[in-house]
Amino acid sequence: MPGRKVSEKTIRRLSHYARCLRRARTDGVPLVTSKHLSERCGISSAAVRKDLAFFGEFGKQGSGYGVSDLLENIERILGTCEPPAVIVVGAGNIGSVLLESVLDGTGGYSYSALFDSDPNIIGTTIAGVTVQPLAELREALGEHGDVIAILAVPPGEGQNAVDNLVSTGCISILSFTLEPLEVPDGVVLRYVEVSTELDILTHSMKCRDRS
Amino acid sequence: MPGRKVSEKTIRRLSHYARCLRRARTDGVPLVTSKHLSERCGISSAAVRKDLAFFGEFGKQGSGYGVSDLLENIERILGTCEPPAVIVVGAGNIGSVLLESVLDGTGGYSYSALFDSDPNIIGTTIAGVTVQPLAELREALGEHGDVIAILAVPPGEGQNAVDNLVSTGCISILSFTLEPLEVPDGVVLRYVEVSTELDILTHSMKCRDRS
Repeated sequence: MPGRKVSEKTIRRLSHYARCLRRARTDGVPLVTSKHLSERCGISSAAVRKDLAFFGEFGKQGSGYGVSDLLENIERILGTCEPPAVIVVGAGNIGSVLLESVLDGTGGYSYSALFDSDPNIIGTTIAGVTVQPLAELREALGEHGDVIAILAVPPGEGQNAVDNLVSTGCISILSFTLEPLEVPDGVVLRYVEVSTELDILTHSMKCRDRS
Repeated sequence: MPGRKVSEKTIRRLSHYARCLRRARTDGVPLVTSKHLSERCGISSAAVRKDLAFFGEFGKQGSGYGVSDLLENIERILGTCEPPAVIVVGAGNIGSVLLESVLDGTGGYSYSALFDSDPNIIGTTIAGVTVQPLAELREALGEHGDVIAILAVPPGEGQNAVDNLVSTGCISILSFTLEPLEVPDGVVLRYVEVSTELDILTHSMKCRDRS
């Protein structure tokens, strides 16, 4: 369904279904029911059935859905059947752990390049990927076409790195830095903000204490 | 304002203001304007003024807000003036990097304990914190009172760890695992899902390609 607009909430659910289906495929499970998906994804059965019905007739009610077929269809909607390359800017602690572990089990994403500005780190290898100088960004992005750039630079270096990425044509950025960043229209920037998550949890805990 | 219900979106903005104000305080800046906060936080000036007016008269329009006063007030609303202890369950790659770097600059949160079930890791020290056996969870939580537990266990071990935490009275969990987890009513569980963020970015990129 080219160009069809799907809400972020729905994408999030589809992402969970895909993860669950990949596990089922790895375990050699041929069919899953909406109840199975519901339980594994923590999403109500009714919502699962509604989602799957909305996106097409993927299976027969009662007999379940073919794991491979359903996964293929969901990945087509998500666009993850041919996942974009992922590059990491910033080879410090967070960049390294991202390379070493975070993409396990995400189904298809893999790191293609790692950049840093520190001459002491450039040329070293982390999880099989050699750290390249930031100056080679343009070349790398040109090579890989569509990429997602993960930003893991130290505080204060975020905007400069973003400007660099944007100037080379990158339109998808996931930031782990703790600073708000500006991007021009057409560039999608998302944040993973551990600090804000902690504040949200703290607030809900204090509210409970007060009530 | 005890017990006052504040939306998650607002908490998120307050969290950004607080981070910005902490930087200003570190830099020795005595006063900030709503324009300053707006620019640094990527939030419209009107929204900043509305937020600050909503929570009280923190400053005089024109002359700006006292950094320390405003920060103190925002931290009172967030509940972060006395931030809860943070414990980490899972001392693998993600757990270690969390301990070593993620809380830098978050203003007040600090790790008080680190747990793992692997006998090879128990007793070792990461960023000054000694890894304790999971069996000591109850004791540690009892000691620290309100805590936020960060879950960084390998896939498949999440629900067991959550059940363990809940049984010891923990009501605030931030999960970095890639599995949906179940908690009873009254426990707040939030996820940091890099994999889902990547799917959302991929989808938006593919939608652009298709349109």
